[in-house]
Amino acid sequence: MKIYLAGPDVFLPDAIETGRRKRELCERHGFVGLFPLDNVIDLAAHDASMKIFRANRAMMDQADAVIANLTPFRGPSADAGTVYELGYMVGRGKLCLGYCNDPRVYRDRVAQIQRTTERDGALLDEAGLLVEDFGLIDNLMIVHGLDLHGCPLVVPDTAPADPQRDLAAFERCLHLLASRRR
Amino acid sequence: MKIYLAGPDVFLPDAIETGRRKRELCERHGFVGLFPLDNVIDLAAHDASMKIFRANRAMMDQADAVIANLTPFRGPSADAGTVYELGYMVGRGKLCLGYCNDPRVYRDRVAQIQRTTERDGALLDEAGLLVEDFGLIDNLMIVHGLDLHGCPLVVPDTAPADPQRDLAAFERCLHLLASRRR
Repeated sequence: MKIYLAGPDVFLPDAIETGRRKRELCERHGFVGLFPLDNVIDLAAHDASMKIFRANRAMMDQADAVIANLTPFRGPSADAGTVYELGYMVGRGKLCLGYCNDPRVYRDRVAQIQRTTERDGALLDEAGLLVEDFGLIDNLMIVHGLDLHGCPLVVPDTAPADPQRDLAAFERCLHLLASRRR
Repeated sequence: MKIYLAGPDVFLPDAIETGRRKRELCERHGFVGLFPLDNVIDLAAHDASMKIFRANRAMMDQADAVIANLTPFRGPSADAGTVYELGYMVGRGKLCLGYCNDPRVYRDRVAQIQRTTERDGALLDEAGLLVEDFGLIDNLMIVHGLDLHGCPLVVPDTAPADPQRDLAAFERCLHLLASRRR
């Protein structure tokens, strides 16, 4: 089984090493991990970003499943590119798993970033927009997309020391996938 | 043609009115707009969020196209729920359009929110993670997903006074859809 390894891991300064660790864990569980940076792209090309898109899409189409790193990225939600890929994989009927190394619920993350107010029982952000408040880790489309098209989002009880690199929750996703295979 | 109206518009205090305006513009161009809040959900139910997910998914499956409001939301990228839905619609083979009422490129948005540094020609954020820098409006998966599966992202030359409510770019998406129909 081939697993597409989605996540903002590709933006880490040690992205190549992170990809290697993830692929190794996949192998240990009998899977093949496909990491976006395994695609060789000439970043100096004028159409580099389109080449990356096409290569990622081809990798996703080739994969049977996705494990998405949905740890918050530059805001209260997961990385936009990763979320796009999760939606795409759900749409393509693939088995979808994900993990989030920040155990806070979405409303608490927003409240820690900006001043929120309550009005008529609803939580509003600084701009007066409603803050989704269903006790979920992120936007309901992400959380329930996983619930209904794969396995429930894996979240540690406490945040690890290095949320963008810690792979314990990633490995729990591999265990979930392995248990479905039996 | 039925168009799913994706966007953080549902979080506006005047979401119902925004949905009504969008549906009316759709009608004027000969389309049927499907707005998530048209689904009647009992928000007090214990499984309200799952009911919303199922209703949105059913609406997307019923639609022929999506117009996504990809204006930045609580960070430098588009709303996570909307991005999930865009990815899903691409995966389902629907016609995908979107608009973004913030004409700044992604790297500039990040640089305005946090202190960035350059190293070896690469832009890094506060945490030392690479900032995507292809001169695009948002993550390349979003931008090129639209390029290859619908119409290029519609972006105004200058930001309108009320980016989350201004519908000029939305109407340009409707014109694009109408011109494809001919």
